[in-house]
Amino acid sequence: MSAIKLAIVGVGKIVHDQHLPAIAANPDYQLIASASRNHTVDGIPGFKSIEEMLAQMPEIEAVSLCMPPQYRYSAAHAALTAGKHVFLEKPPGATLSEVADLEALAASKGLTLFTSWHSRYAPGVQPAKAFLAANAPASMHVIWKEDVRHWHPNQDWIWQAGGLGVFDPGINALSIVTEILPERIFLSGASLEFPDNREAPIAADLHFQSAGALRVHAEFDWRQTGKQSWDVLVETAKGQVKLSDGGSRLWIDGVEQPLEKEAEYPSLYRVFADLVKAGKSDVDVAPLRHVADAFMLGKRKVVDAFHD
Amino acid sequence: MSAIKLAIVGVGKIVHDQHLPAIAANPDYQLIASASRNHTVDGIPGFKSIEEMLAQMPEIEAVSLCMPPQYRYSAAHAALTAGKHVFLEKPPGATLSEVADLEALAASKGLTLFTSWHSRYAPGVQPAKAFLAANAPASMHVIWKEDVRHWHPNQDWIWQAGGLGVFDPGINALSIVTEILPERIFLSGASLEFPDNREAPIAADLHFQSAGALRVHAEFDWRQTGKQSWDVLVETAKGQVKLSDGGSRLWIDGVEQPLEKEAEYPSLYRVFADLVKAGKSDVDVAPLRHVADAFMLGKRKVVDAFHD
Repeated sequence: MSAIKLAIVGVGKIVHDQHLPAIAANPDYQLIASASRNHTVDGIPGFKSIEEMLAQMPEIEAVSLCMPPQYRYSAAHAALTAGKHVFLEKPPGATLSEVADLEALAASKGLTLFTSWHSRYAPGVQPAKAFLAANAPASMHVIWKEDVRHWHPNQDWIWQAGGLGVFDPGINALSIVTEILPERIFLSGASLEFPDNREAPIAADLHFQSAGALRVHAEFDWRQTGKQSWDVLVETAKGQVKLSDGGSRLWIDGVEQPLEKEAEYPSLYRVFADLVKAGKSDVDVAPLRHVADAFMLGKRKVVDAFHD
Repeated sequence: MSAIKLAIVGVGKIVHDQHLPAIAANPDYQLIASASRNHTVDGIPGFKSIEEMLAQMPEIEAVSLCMPPQYRYSAAHAALTAGKHVFLEKPPGATLSEVADLEALAASKGLTLFTSWHSRYAPGVQPAKAFLAANAPASMHVIWKEDVRHWHPNQDWIWQAGGLGVFDPGINALSIVTEILPERIFLSGASLEFPDNREAPIAADLHFQSAGALRVHAEFDWRQTGKQSWDVLVETAKGQVKLSDGGSRLWIDGVEQPLEKEAEYPSLYRVFADLVKAGKSDVDVAPLRHVADAFMLGKRKVVDAFHD
């Protein structure tokens, strides 16, 4: 099979930092075009819109969609309708219903749709999952606290309705949680804090349960200055599992574990190529479903206005 | 096949008004027990909890769950674990994730799980669906405006987080909309009004789109006094389809259509018996998914406190 002729849509920081290096290093891909309102990629044709790109370059076989989630559906629909495989950055959409629509469309056309969750490929995630499969978790505590002014400065879209607010990083935690736990969980209670001047929450406190005795407590906060936390702590009869730094470091019962090198985006592009070759899709909405559940079930609290 | 030995859980107004008459009229069922904290059903054993009922009466084959959605998961899980088929009143749960968990559990045990949506069996719904399958809708306007003081007096659970507020009746509209439209839709924008003293919305304004040109506008409001509205208006090239009174009356291009007698709950119990006999499940979360999407995507507005 020759290299997949790929185009990338929505050229922002994450594309330059992660997608382009991962694509360049993978012989399964040939990056042949980009579409973005304001940015181009050196050395390949750049278009202002995905519609123009698809019309001008019918040889494109697959697209990677990296724009904000509010704009992802129409691009994905245009690409699938034009017969292209689709890679969706996280979160896969602004609503669950639009993802369900895309899933049905991809299936009806025999195309690959991939809802990517990069944090699941952090080096500590699969070793943690393997340990928890053998040693049942009793409880889990998720602490995802970062400084939004540092990580998302002046990103207005993230504060708009549909931008998810603190769930934009928090959904990464939920993608890890749903990957490593041997049991399904669901929300039993939540509270969300909305700044007085914003449409999206700045903090969330979530309680989940499983059908069994497992309890999960997750704390997301965007007001953290000083030490940043992206930690998942799991108690088992064989000691504590501690995943830190977003899954890039792992301790089991106090002993740090040797891990592979970080390769989240290279892993995502390897999986996407495998799916395209196998003619399959991978549409997992579990992390976004937990977020929607939190908005539906959660108590709302208005807190101080937030200014960048 | 002998009659299904059925038990009913959560004995409130809807059970007396709808479930008991429908069950009594259907020879596919033998109602043999009930469980409810405060109420019993004349002539059959009554238990305080579903767990006690299942332990005392192992001959029960199926349960109908009619308690508020916040309490439905644990009862459904107990019933499925005990090998019983499960009928869920609408909405099927307080979260989408718990319904996904129940769906997987039912499938793993070869049991029937039925997410019932009674409004889909209103007499005008299937004729409207047939007309729209032949005459593509251009736009739809949903007006669901009722007086909560009249229809849900002092029902505190409905105002609590997870009680859904105005989406409790509104989800009936969404169950009709998703049944009669020939295209899938998803939310493109929403605003939700929360009373200052309540955790659930009293009004919602929703805009949906399809992959094509169809646009749907839905207005839910619980502050309606005087004339009550449960109307769905659809514009087509062959005239307007008007479903009124929650689907019980139908006009096409100005002409009222003759309809069958109202039989929502008898229809639900007929479908459930057919599913049990066929060894199948019917788990459709589309209406609840639209509600969760509305909470996730919608702008929030705080309005005057509401007192019963």
